[in-house]
Formats: sequence, structure tokens, C-alpha cells
Amino acid sequence: MRDFFATDSFFMTDSIQLLGISNAIVDVLAHVDDDFLQKIAAPRGSMTLIDQQRAREIYGMMGPATEKSGGSVANTIAGFANLGGRAAYIGRVKADQLGEIFVHDMRSLGVDIRTDPATDGSPTARCHVLITPDGQRTMQTYLGACTELSTADVTPSSIGTPGIVLLEGYVWDIAEGPALVNKAIDIARKNGSRVALSLSDSFCVERHQKEFRSAIKNGVDIVFADENEVIALFQAKSFTEVLDALDGLSNMFVITRSAKGSVIVHGSEKVEQKAIKVDKVIDTTGAGDAYTAGFLFGLASGRSLVDCARMGTWCATGVIQQVGGRIEKNALSGFK
Amino acid sequence: MRDFFATDSFFMTDSIQLLGISNAIVDVLAHVDDDFLQKIAAPRGSMTLIDQQRAREIYGMMGPATEKSGGSVANTIAGFANLGGRAAYIGRVKADQLGEIFVHDMRSLGVDIRTDPATDGSPTARCHVLITPDGQRTMQTYLGACTELSTADVTPSSIGTPGIVLLEGYVWDIAEGPALVNKAIDIARKNGSRVALSLSDSFCVERHQKEFRSAIKNGVDIVFADENEVIALFQAKSFTEVLDALDGLSNMFVITRSAKGSVIVHGSEKVEQKAIKVDKVIDTTGAGDAYTAGFLFGLASGRSLVDCARMGTWCATGVIQQVGGRIEKNALSGFK
Repeated sequence: MRDFFATDSFFMTDSIQLLGISNAIVDVLAHVDDDFLQKIAAPRGSMTLIDQQRAREIYGMMGPATEKSGGSVANTIAGFANLGGRAAYIGRVKADQLGEIFVHDMRSLGVDIRTDPATDGSPTARCHVLITPDGQRTMQTYLGACTELSTADVTPSSIGTPGIVLLEGYVWDIAEGPALVNKAIDIARKNGSRVALSLSDSFCVERHQKEFRSAIKNGVDIVFADENEVIALFQAKSFTEVLDALDGLSNMFVITRSAKGSVIVHGSEKVEQKAIKVDKVIDTTGAGDAYTAGFLFGLASGRSLVDCARMGTWCATGVIQQVGGRIEKNALSGFK
Repeated sequence: MRDFFATDSFFMTDSIQLLGISNAIVDVLAHVDDDFLQKIAAPRGSMTLIDQQRAREIYGMMGPATEKSGGSVANTIAGFANLGGRAAYIGRVKADQLGEIFVHDMRSLGVDIRTDPATDGSPTARCHVLITPDGQRTMQTYLGACTELSTADVTPSSIGTPGIVLLEGYVWDIAEGPALVNKAIDIARKNGSRVALSLSDSFCVERHQKEFRSAIKNGVDIVFADENEVIALFQAKSFTEVLDALDGLSNMFVITRSAKGSVIVHGSEKVEQKAIKVDKVIDTTGAGDAYTAGFLFGLASGRSLVDCARMGTWCATGVIQQVGGRIEKNALSGFK
């Protein structure tokens, strides 16, 4: 097991601490009632990939919406930068108005965008985020320009030598995804960058379970997942079975469990962190992404795993009390 | 003085109760500190018209933003439809992504859009809404496609015979604005529709004071304004002077006064309505527009002026406790 978490110099390989590679998406957020999910046959809390035609249909059925930059790992990168971290990003948008919004929202936080908006191809991706009265979000995603991200976008110069390269499971859904992820992992390992993987959602894990396990065996250092995702990853029957499966693995697993808090397992080290109670959950969009941002910011600042877990929890607690997956003010403001 | 407020049949001339003609704008909302306004030399609470180059500069200086359909009278039309009113709308967007957002947000509320998105010309308008910590909003507007709204868009068939035609002062800022407003007033009067005018902002009133007074003398039945706007309209020194100036006018004046409530003057009738206290003002965007929506919905439902003022106040109170100028749920939910 490489002991790279023990030293302060962990993130000193580059001025960039965290580089994300992921689907670049603008969220179209609207409140819906429970019947709406039934009408479009969407499992509550799921993320469904849809084509442009279906996107038009879904949008046409939705009420007035709010547009905000989104995307899972993109949210994490934005959150990390908002906390004061130095971040970079690889992801494809088209040079259209939604693409401009996505790039602006990243750049305005100081994120170094390493992929030029495309002048041809599909429009910028949009995720229709349907928020039910319980605060749960169900997503219908048209990937558009994301599907055209290619291995050519992932090079030694576009990646550089960041402290960590953060990937998301959703990238495996796009045509050149598996190849570009492998290329990114190779470059990262050669440069001494660590590799983190966010598992995206349990359906995504079901789709790519073998590939994820192979990546975790061969190059991924840190895995971010929620309870359902790790259960799907190990085809386990319970969370206890997951903990058994982790025994002997050298990777760090950071597992969020909603109201049950979070658990970090790294070799023989285990940290359990309670959730913070909130009066009302407005919208769970981006809860896991915000946790990852806070956790990685703690790690980049040389904090203990206990502190990292607390910082992740703090950020996630903030984001579920607003609409949209990114907090505009510093999400750790008031943290103690 | 035409006594058209006395009968239930007032709004029965068409199935459409309210038609708006205005600048169709998507808001780009972001929180800024007070220094930001100084840096761009924007008077607090003002609306400044900017060109595309300046829009790029301002946007480039802003932090992460949220996009929501906006526009003053457009907000009122959306709010009126959201309350259950039957509404139609004339305003120009381009057939681009922001234009699609604007049209979607209107149509999803049942608003009958009477202007096709333009396939050529300038992009859809955007208003950079800069929200300071006190909840005040300062606006930097790039009018884009709005400037190309023309007299050809305003015809007997596009207007129809709605109960009320609602205009906004900002329309006088665009090239064919004065001509198309006159045309709209002519059509409305021939069809028995009433004409309402929202004065937009005090700077706008300064720009077009003579034209507004002429319109109010010749065809406008109801004037919506805040205190600063009516003071500018009558070049008055105080609100008391404004009330004197109203003496003898046959128009209905609906005047909002922020925390001081609102006053409706219609001939010898005068209604004073207190404001509702709120713990914290989040964002004043759309406060006046929401008031107008609630007030006109009351009028369309045959309510007394006292009730109309209460409904307007209720809607305005709701909208200042959120970010953005339109409430997604029914703004009168819980009204009593």
C-alpha cells in the first residue's frame, strides 16, 4: 500500500491540487409532484440517460425551471475551488449559451478549464432535475456534447501534474470513456498524481461494475461512493458485507450514507462521521459532490481523515438546504 | 371617468384576461459585495442598459450565477398565469437556448406566446442581476433581441381582445417602442380592452417622462409604479405632492412604497395597504412585478380594491424571500 497520505507534500506536485474529468452539464431544476415521476416512469432518485427527442418531451412537460451549472464531479471541482482550492477541469461543452454558462461558472471560481468549447457537434448537455416535495432529486440527462469527449482531450499537457485526478463513473457511459479514463490513469500514475473515482450512482455501477472493479484494482487510490453504490460494486447484500469486502484492499473508500453519516476506510484505519441534522431538506442535488469537495479540500490542506470527513459533512449539509448542486458562498464559512 | 371596474363583466371580453407587451429577458443572478457595484460604477438599485461588449465584461467579473426567466412585465404575466389567470404575451427572443428557456417558462404556466422566436438578429436579452447583502438588486441589461421588437409584432390578431393590455415603460427604450405602444393602445381601445402601464424604474421615467404623461392622458387606464417612479413622473418633491397631482385624474394609480406598503388612488377612492414584515429580504428582484400580478389577478377575479392590494402585497412578500423574480409555486397559496 502506497502511504501517500502520510506526508504534507502529497499535493505539492503541481500548483493544481485537483483536476476533474467528467461530464460537463447544466442543470434544469424544477419542482414536480410525485405523479410526475410516475407519468414519465422515472424511478425516484435515479439518473436516466435520455436522447434529445426525449429531452424535449420531458422539458415540455416540466413547469418553470431554474438553470444552474451542474454535473457530479464538475460540482465537486467548483466546490473545491469555492473553498479556496486550486482546481482544473477537463470536460466537453459546445460553444453555445449553456456551454458559456458552464464555463463561466467554473472560471469565475478560478478553475482552469483545459477543454475548449466545441464549435461543432451536439449541444451542451442538460440534466432535467426533478425535485419532489421530499427534497429527493430524480435526473433525466441528455448528454449531448459530453458524448464527444475523446482520448484526444486527455493528454499529458491537459492533465499536467495535479495532486489528484478525480474521475466519475458516468464517464464510462460515453463512447471513448473507458479508453480516455485508462489514458488518464496512466498519465496520472506516471506523473505521481493520485487517482480518485466517484462512483456516480448505483445504476451506473450496475452498468460498469467489472470495469470499476478493474480500475479500483489498477490505479484508483480513493473511491467516493454512497451506500447503494458500494453495495452494487461488491454485489453485496448489506453494508456489513461491503465492509468485509474492503478488508485487505489498499484503496481509501469514502462512503456516504445520507442521514446515517459517512464512513472512511483506509487499510486498518476507519473513521465514522455522523450526519448533521437539518430541519428541512430542500433538494438533495449535489449532496455527495459537495461532500467530496469538502473531504478533498481537507486532504489538500493536510487535515486528518476525521477532519476531512467533518468538512465533507459540513459542505453536504449546506447544499441540501438550497436548490441546486453548488453553493455560491464558501461552503465552509462558519465551519468549526 | 369610465366606470369599468364596477362590473363583473370587466374581464369577459376575451378568454384571455391579461396580455403583456414587454422586453423578454433571462436573468443571470449572482450575489456580489458592495465593492462590486463601485467597481462597475452602478448606482445601487438601478437598471443600466449595456451593449454586448459590456455585457461580456460584467459577466466575466461576476461569480457563479443562476439563470431564471425574468423581465418586469414578463414576470407579472408569468405570476398572473401561475395564480390561475389566463394570460398571453408579446415579446421578442431569439431562437437560441436562452430564448428557449424564456418561452418554456412562460408556456409551462399556460401563457399564450404570440411572438415566434426570431431565427435571425441579436441573441436573447440577458439581465445581470447583482444582489447585494441587503437583498437589493442592481441590474445591467443587454437588450439584444428585445430591441428588434417591431410594430409588425403588434397587430389586432396578436393582441386579440384581452381584458387588459399591460405595457412596461422599458418598451419606450427600444427603437420602435413608442410606435408599437401607440399601436397597441389604439388596438386595445378599439377592442374594449383596458390598458395598464408599469413605469419600470425612475431612471426610465426620467428618460420618457413626457411620453408617459401623454400615454397616461390618452389611453392608459391603470398605472403601476413605485414611489420614486411617480415622483419622477410628476416631477414632484414629495409623495404628498404626488397625491395632489393625482387629484382630478381619472386613471387608477397603484403605487408601491416598499416597507411603507402601497396606495391605490382611483378618482375619489383611496386604499392604503400595509406591507407584511419579513425576517430577511433575500432578493428584491421582481417585488413590484409580483405585486402587479397579485393585484391584477384580484381585479380579474372581481375582488375589491382592498383585496387586490392585499393579494399584490402577499405575492410581493413571497418573491422577496427567494432568489429570482418569479415564484414557482402558486404565490397566493395560504392567502387569507
